[in-house]
Amino acid sequence: MRTLRLAVAGLGRLGFRHAENVAFRLPGVELAAVCSLNPQELERAAQAFPTAARYADFDQMLRHDGLDGVVICTPSSLHVAQIEAALRAGLHVFSEKPLGVTAEECQHAERVVAEHPNQVFLLGFMRRFDPHYLYAKRLIEEGRIGKPFLVRSYSLDPIASLESVLRYIPHSGGLFLDMAVHDIDLANWYLGGSPVSAYAVGGSFSSPEFARYGDADNACLVLQYGGGEMAFIYAGRTAAHGYHIETEIVGTQGMLRVSSVPQKNLVQIFEGRGVLQECVGGFLERFEAAYLHELHEFVRCVRSGCQPEITVHDGTLATRVALAATASFKERRLVEL
Amino acid sequence: MRTLRLAVAGLGRLGFRHAENVAFRLPGVELAAVCSLNPQELERAAQAFPTAARYADFDQMLRHDGLDGVVICTPSSLHVAQIEAALRAGLHVFSEKPLGVTAEECQHAERVVAEHPNQVFLLGFMRRFDPHYLYAKRLIEEGRIGKPFLVRSYSLDPIASLESVLRYIPHSGGLFLDMAVHDIDLANWYLGGSPVSAYAVGGSFSSPEFARYGDADNACLVLQYGGGEMAFIYAGRTAAHGYHIETEIVGTQGMLRVSSVPQKNLVQIFEGRGVLQECVGGFLERFEAAYLHELHEFVRCVRSGCQPEITVHDGTLATRVALAATASFKERRLVEL
Amino acid sequence: MRTLRLAVAGLGRLGFRHAENVAFRLPGVELAAVCSLNPQELERAAQAFPTAARYADFDQMLRHDGLDGVVICTPSSLHVAQIEAALRAGLHVFSEKPLGVTAEECQHAERVVAEHPNQVFLLGFMRRFDPHYLYAKRLIEEGRIGKPFLVRSYSLDPIASLESVLRYIPHSGGLFLDMAVHDIDLANWYLGGSPVSAYAVGGSFSSPEFARYGDADNACLVLQYGGGEMAFIYAGRTAAHGYHIETEIVGTQGMLRVSSVPQKNLVQIFEGRGVLQECVGGFLERFEAAYLHELHEFVRCVRSGCQPEITVHDGTLATRVALAATASFKERRLVEL
Amino acid sequence: MRTLRLAVAGLGRLGFRHAENVAFRLPGVELAAVCSLNPQELERAAQAFPTAARYADFDQMLRHDGLDGVVICTPSSLHVAQIEAALRAGLHVFSEKPLGVTAEECQHAERVVAEHPNQVFLLGFMRRFDPHYLYAKRLIEEGRIGKPFLVRSYSLDPIASLESVLRYIPHSGGLFLDMAVHDIDLANWYLGGSPVSAYAVGGSFSSPEFARYGDADNACLVLQYGGGEMAFIYAGRTAAHGYHIETEIVGTQGMLRVSSVPQKNLVQIFEGRGVLQECVGGFLERFEAAYLHELHEFVRCVRSGCQPEITVHDGTLATRVALAATASFKERRLVEL
Repeated sequence: MRTLRLAVAGLGRLGFRHAENVAFRLPGVELAAVCSLNPQELERAAQAFPTAARYADFDQMLRHDGLDGVVICTPSSLHVAQIEAALRAGLHVFSEKPLGVTAEECQHAERVVAEHPNQVFLLGFMRRFDPHYLYAKRLIEEGRIGKPFLVRSYSLDPIASLESVLRYIPHSGGLFLDMAVHDIDLANWYLGGSPVSAYAVGGSFSSPEFARYGDADNACLVLQYGGGEMAFIYAGRTAAHGYHIETEIVGTQGMLRVSSVPQKNLVQIFEGRGVLQECVGGFLERFEAAYLHELHEFVRCVRSGCQPEITVHDGTLATRVALAATASFKERRLVEL
Repeated sequence: MRTLRLAVAGLGRLGFRHAENVAFRLPGVELAAVCSLNPQELERAAQAFPTAARYADFDQMLRHDGLDGVVICTPSSLHVAQIEAALRAGLHVFSEKPLGVTAEECQHAERVVAEHPNQVFLLGFMRRFDPHYLYAKRLIEEGRIGKPFLVRSYSLDPIASLESVLRYIPHSGGLFLDMAVHDIDLANWYLGGSPVSAYAVGGSFSSPEFARYGDADNACLVLQYGGGEMAFIYAGRTAAHGYHIETEIVGTQGMLRVSSVPQKNLVQIFEGRGVLQECVGGFLERFEAAYLHELHEFVRCVRSGCQPEITVHDGTLATRVALAATASFKERRLVEL
Repeated sequence: MRTLRLAVAGLGRLGFRHAENVAFRLPGVELAAVCSLNPQELERAAQAFPTAARYADFDQMLRHDGLDGVVICTPSSLHVAQIEAALRAGLHVFSEKPLGVTAEECQHAERVVAEHPNQVFLLGFMRRFDPHYLYAKRLIEEGRIGKPFLVRSYSLDPIASLESVLRYIPHSGGLFLDMAVHDIDLANWYLGGSPVSAYAVGGSFSSPEFARYGDADNACLVLQYGGGEMAFIYAGRTAAHGYHIETEIVGTQGMLRVSSVPQKNLVQIFEGRGVLQECVGGFLERFEAAYLHELHEFVRCVRSGCQPEITVHDGTLATRVALAATASFKERRLVEL
Repeated sequence: MRTLRLAVAGLGRLGFRHAENVAFRLPGVELAAVCSLNPQELERAAQAFPTAARYADFDQMLRHDGLDGVVICTPSSLHVAQIEAALRAGLHVFSEKPLGVTAEECQHAERVVAEHPNQVFLLGFMRRFDPHYLYAKRLIEEGRIGKPFLVRSYSLDPIASLESVLRYIPHSGGLFLDMAVHDIDLANWYLGGSPVSAYAVGGSFSSPEFARYGDADNACLVLQYGGGEMAFIYAGRTAAHGYHIETEIVGTQGMLRVSSVPQKNLVQIFEGRGVLQECVGGFLERFEAAYLHELHEFVRCVRSGCQPEITVHDGTLATRVALAATASFKERRLVEL
């Protein structure tokens, strides 16, 4: 089994985790190169991955000798251009969500991916690789809850990270594209279709900064699907108790809840104020397994020559719905899709 | 302390429970009369309350000697006329929700109640008397979750009662007026205002019967309030696991969940398939205490000469929002209030 | 239905609650008299129950005109003498646990009760009237967990009440007689037999005061029954989180837990440190319904002329086991029963 | 960093898992050889680990060229002899629990380990490497619950595996040595000492087979420690709901519960009978991470030349207590240690 040589572009918190997974937790895979515009991030990578080549330029990195694929964790606005460059360079591509930040970008990405059918393209909707979400999917497929007709999904960032969020509001694409996009993809996945309408409301309840940029710190979205199915999505930046990712799927014969309480672990603390269940602090903690499993799947596809279940079209769909939600929120109207 | 003499009109499941509470669980209160169009119900009442007079006619009952007040549990479409008749007869009035089934009826009820300021009028939004909902309200008032900006509330009837529901669809006023009206009132209560817009979606996922009557067996409603606050309400007729009433209040510094799992009691069953928490089977079980407490409050107001916190206007508001939700659902549009 | 006239002796926290239940929550029952050695308690009763006669002397109270029965909530060491006096005075008797504080007392009580077969005698093992414990019993009787062979039961007082406990250590009879006696009775009830051996360990982990009186602030007891069944009982005085009463019944085909988390209500608080479930603060809160239901049963037996399921012998058994546990703990040995 | 070459002896369910972890999940480690008396197990290993040498003889395997260490997962009665042989062959040794099945064996093992101070010896008390148990330990060390004085620990095998257990009863060493040994080690670890007395009761409640071998299918053990601390351990073979490993640590200022409900994952199923939490099915599922982490620690110690926190003496202690429990159970007496 030939060693696969991967590069990681973007070394923020998630990019660094991907680099660690590539370097240490994927048998038969090597972290050949990393890339970042941030000298401190590159320095940190030098310590952690001494054998990986370091680049400040993405395109230069693509020409690194013997590379098989690239993992893209750069800002959202760069995704599509880098996906294109990497595919055209003959590499397999794993890209973080969102696929693109406009509908045009997404359509372009779809065309480019279609032109490279023999290269793997995987979009990082990591929740689909989370063991809990997968288990729920399996139960649904086994008919345990009948026909699903409602998904409720929450993506709440901890208020502890609000300050760092405030710094990148202008570049985040807004709450729907930055966060709800995961819930949108989950709803599409569990309900098995694409929405026909979107209606969103929201506000800047904790911090007026969001309103200044036309964004919200907490917002809700209702989708309706072709068969009448419904989704309710709530995304927020101010959860006091931690990183709260919760999803409920209601069917005609039962319902499932995934992570209703975002428990940190199996320890309950009985103390002065009652019984406390501590919560997970962030996405790296909650989705530790999922981030690893999605790379496993990427590698499996590369080795086997098949394409993953998640397609570039899923990325387009999620971005389109997030954009519709943004428009609905800003213009206070129902948006047809 | 003079014995209060109350009558109960309507002896369905809830009416009968009210009659039991009046007869046996309110110190210093007597069940003087009952009224029903249904001979079987009257017969059953004769067994259970042998000392209470029995009437088939509401107006005749109002003339029963020495009556202080009446508890109205008749079909929704009769409420306003009976409230008016009772108030004009000089009686204190407790009425089940909804106040009325049209905006005009509600306005009429408001006028009639205003004309009788010395008689108590209490609308049966019993959830406000539930110890768990009250506890949540108190925590909010103490500032425990900061400023509330989102309410999520579920009212799900057990699928076990679907058949009996199917029989009264045409007379129910629809899912929003029949069920969501409680959640609407809760959202108004916790968020402290009235909605400015309503958007609803729904469908007949389990039973095509609902669609035939322009109704839904499961539907969702998003409200937005004047200060930007949001409410998400989900009402359904097909919960496999039981009677599921759940409410969540999200604030800037924390969130509360009331009855996230509608547990029947404190018994967990560890058995073949896992750990099972059985659920409450219906409203009489879930709100046993609340149904008693609201009558306590009614009696307290009658004795003390003060008016309850819940006003006739709360009833109008809930009905108006439920009607807006119904219009939004049927016409597939955002409705401004 | 003739009004029953009951007296309550002992007006501490529980005695006062019994008096309230007798006065206000039992239809057709009247609180005719109360008795306490404590003038402040009598004064408080005068305010709360103006129509009840007040006595400082138990025997004098027994002669109160027209009395049907008496509820005894005095210190444990007085129970048997007062039970005897009341029965000999022709009254029905409800007595708080424990039956007596020595085996001789209990045997004497049994004889006295046997001599008055037409008077109701009910011992206040209120847990048997708790809806949750009753539900567990019913599930067991239905065969849901097969044959029960192990009971684990906790009785933990909140550390908040430690100071008041410290004052009555010398008169409490010790941790086993004062607290574990309830768990012992539950184990006997669920396992359906009587123990053949007792082994106990304990210590004064929080407060050396307990050791000074040969008592423990936390102690464990293992019982074995005739058929090999086992019980593990843990009693303590120092629970940080509240009043923790929990029972588990393990059978050959499943197990039940009653109140594994002693939740205060159905409200979950999501806040800075995680998800908090507040706990019940004390016995009056946890067993509010049970304290009422046991008096209902007492009244039912009086009216119907039958005897309750709980017998004086259950009281003797619980006391004997508690005394064996105390001996085992003090003498560090296995005690055969 | 030189590649470490490890061998695995014993290829039952756990041995095979260890082999997988060595082969695929430890960076810089190689599965050089495997050993089993069972030809089918060797055949399966040939498929899974084609590059590993296969042996039917343990001593022969020890002479495999370039071996650094061995992982022993053979029947309990072979552990000490194989530990000795491996250490004398100059290898680092990881051995599954229990250390030995007699006190003499354990003392012998202690001597042998002491004679090889430069070789790593690690005993597989994997729970100490479980993230949840480690988290509890950390909270205790931070003083979160004050001074711990009571440990309650359950080890319940699923009834689904009863049949396979029945086959190896005669060779299991009995319930205390086979299962409770983990709980004993946990109690020692959390309470920080060694027990001074043991008292055990048990029975064959589900299957008379256990009694035939002087064993129990469910048994309880109470330990007392030098400072008065207590432990209650319950081990069983017949849990209907799954593999139930639960531990509670009670301190003077709070208490912790680890895995009170042995939840399979974060999915709750709301269905016909209530809300179901499915449970883990077995040890490989529950302790997947712990089995990997203990090997990580083994490798870390080998590379760094330091010894693990768990010592051979911990193994002796656990075995001695398990043997005392067995004696107490069989002879129906309190055993001093």
